[in-house]
Amino acid sequence: MNDLRRGNAFYAQSGGVTSVINASASALLLAAREHPERISRVLAGRNGILGALEERLVDTSELSEEQIAALCNRPGGVFGSCRHKLRNISADNPECQRLLSVFQAYDIRYFFYNGGNDSADTCLKMAELARRMDYSLQAIHLPKTVDNDLALTDCCPGFGSAAKYIAVSVREAALDVASMAATSTRVFILEVMGRNAGWLAAAGALARDGDGSAPHIVLVPEAVFDKTRFVQRMQDLVQRCGYCVVVASEGIRDADGNLLSASERRDAFGHQQLGGVAPMLAKMASDAGLKSHWAVADYLQRSARHLASATDLEQARAVGTTAVKMAMDGHNAIMPAIVRTSDAPYKWHIEPVPLSHVANEERRLPANYIAADGMDVTASACDYLRPLIQGEAWPPYRAGLPLYETPPLREVSQRLPPFQRPPDAPA
Amino acid sequence: MNDLRRGNAFYAQSGGVTSVINASASALLLAAREHPERISRVLAGRNGILGALEERLVDTSELSEEQIAALCNRPGGVFGSCRHKLRNISADNPECQRLLSVFQAYDIRYFFYNGGNDSADTCLKMAELARRMDYSLQAIHLPKTVDNDLALTDCCPGFGSAAKYIAVSVREAALDVASMAATSTRVFILEVMGRNAGWLAAAGALARDGDGSAPHIVLVPEAVFDKTRFVQRMQDLVQRCGYCVVVASEGIRDADGNLLSASERRDAFGHQQLGGVAPMLAKMASDAGLKSHWAVADYLQRSARHLASATDLEQARAVGTTAVKMAMDGHNAIMPAIVRTSDAPYKWHIEPVPLSHVANEERRLPANYIAADGMDVTASACDYLRPLIQGEAWPPYRAGLPLYETPPLREVSQRLPPFQRPPDAPA
Repeated sequence: MNDLRRGNAFYAQSGGVTSVINASASALLLAAREHPERISRVLAGRNGILGALEERLVDTSELSEEQIAALCNRPGGVFGSCRHKLRNISADNPECQRLLSVFQAYDIRYFFYNGGNDSADTCLKMAELARRMDYSLQAIHLPKTVDNDLALTDCCPGFGSAAKYIAVSVREAALDVASMAATSTRVFILEVMGRNAGWLAAAGALARDGDGSAPHIVLVPEAVFDKTRFVQRMQDLVQRCGYCVVVASEGIRDADGNLLSASERRDAFGHQQLGGVAPMLAKMASDAGLKSHWAVADYLQRSARHLASATDLEQARAVGTTAVKMAMDGHNAIMPAIVRTSDAPYKWHIEPVPLSHVANEERRLPANYIAADGMDVTASACDYLRPLIQGEAWPPYRAGLPLYETPPLREVSQRLPPFQRPPDAPA
Repeated sequence: MNDLRRGNAFYAQSGGVTSVINASASALLLAAREHPERISRVLAGRNGILGALEERLVDTSELSEEQIAALCNRPGGVFGSCRHKLRNISADNPECQRLLSVFQAYDIRYFFYNGGNDSADTCLKMAELARRMDYSLQAIHLPKTVDNDLALTDCCPGFGSAAKYIAVSVREAALDVASMAATSTRVFILEVMGRNAGWLAAAGALARDGDGSAPHIVLVPEAVFDKTRFVQRMQDLVQRCGYCVVVASEGIRDADGNLLSASERRDAFGHQQLGGVAPMLAKMASDAGLKSHWAVADYLQRSARHLASATDLEQARAVGTTAVKMAMDGHNAIMPAIVRTSDAPYKWHIEPVPLSHVANEERRLPANYIAADGMDVTASACDYLRPLIQGEAWPPYRAGLPLYETPPLREVSQRLPPFQRPPDAPA
């Protein structure tokens, strides 16, 4: 535990954003205001840690409580995000020197970083850097990722809403293809995010509302993709049900571990083509004589605030509130993690977990969540997933569209000389 | 006007379905029940006109009013749709003979067909066939298509909801890419439907909520696509705004009229590859050094009942109710068309238009809806589009997902010998 003192806080958003990341920001900002004896102001970094490096700091004390509360409705990272890794934490590293200079210049004593695996690493490095330099700082990581792949937390804020979006989309598109199957489309493929972990694809299975209902095939990166068996399965399903709906992770791989989306796709010049697993799977269907359609959800799935899960929104808020509480309790180098104690009724609470066990880890689907044939998920997976999509949390609408307001974000006048930031790490 | 007599009605759904087509069905079935002196029962064809050919007829008199009312919430075609064109209307055509036999066997005197351009043609042919064979029948076409390309109606039920889905999705995804642009994705491309008409892409423009806001580029099939100017525009936008959001119709074409999605995409064997304008445009961005993401909405946009426009839903219902009223008034070979009398406040009513002026016509974006540079739509287009997405019409939810119920659909016992249907027309 650090010594507890008054100072300012830094909050920033990092990595791929979600539809509820601003709900965490909102809750954190409101909670911080309840501790004026400890936190004078929260300075929000523009574009994650870059905001600290570049001294682009939004003074959130100028925002009204109403403006902060309204952030809960707005998808995307309102302060901007970044993909930027701190290479190492030595006194020689100009980034480290700079970060400490900025923190000192603004008397920042609380570092709240809202992100995924890489961001947890950055947060941990900040704690370690401060320790080495004997600078009093508490670093707390707020979990956030639609990929749901953070270790030590039962789920990640942002995932439940993306999962709900996928389940709803699959249920709707399945009714469409079922209507068309007599004379036209017989196979529909939805590609979702998940390069290494199949959580989002698995969520597609929640669309089912009875035996034999869609989706009929769920493909995840944790199971080897076998083209022959996949095509056979589609043909069997079309014969039996009349149509076939597939949900596929972008990261599915063949037996050699090669990404499907990176194989076979060469243009006439031998260049690898851009693009998606869905069109590849659709081509397999077409080659087998099955007319197919495909969709790629991409950013739509992680920004769909219009379809947020109320449960997810509540958890996003809870990690924001709890992050402040844990800081006030003297915690450092930790993450408020969601702990589940019951599936039905769904019960959960939040506990601190050490960041050293979170950073750079990646939680993939456990074996018992994947069907034996590798082309579906199990009832256990659905039992885990179901609570996370419960409840609706409509944003306000104006003129037929969701009202997503960005409040005026005034940056503080810069006090330090400019910093030339090093080239970005690969995204 | 035909002579007016008591009999049964046939209703069927045809072509690509929408998220509100069942609202038209629902309204029609309820309205028909108010005229028992004229309409004994409505028999719904399974899979469009195929239901008549194959004598697969659902007896809707077995459905309760509650079950019929609930159809308004369910996307997809509840009775199944088809893509099937009547080749000609001669007495020699076995399909024509069969249709008349089935209609006679069930004393069908009202033919309600719910579809797009091709379906209007089928409906008109049915009227003509009955006239030639001296069979008393009133044929009425209910408009429906997300493409919004039917002639003589101000808009098409189904379009407003798909338009709303696209506008919301663009607004949300734009907030996502804006968050990421500092170090990662700078270009986002959403591909929407519209092979010949850019109505759906144009609807993306409704996402704007201020000068310079997304989408920054809108590509429609009515404007020639010029790669050089497109890439230059993306680069300019990224320099000026930090990021760039593009909405593109699937049907954009180059100066020679070639579909972009069908050009350049050959695999190593020279075979044309499946797929999408969005990945092609994304590759242009990447080749220009701009990291990009892309999404393809496909069936998601036309089945998104969870985001239906209340205005669209009301119009879908209205064409169902009015179709019955027009039949009772003795109309034949017509379509109830939506007539707009004011943009703001939005005012509309329904009038009958002759099917002969609708069938096989295709309404494209007028020139004054397309920006001079061919990469955007105009304020006039937005004035036209805006009323169509107004109002929300949430379906009921259960356990975190929309409740889309399919009532039990019992088919009548077949009375005629089986019919061997000819091969499907190309979809």
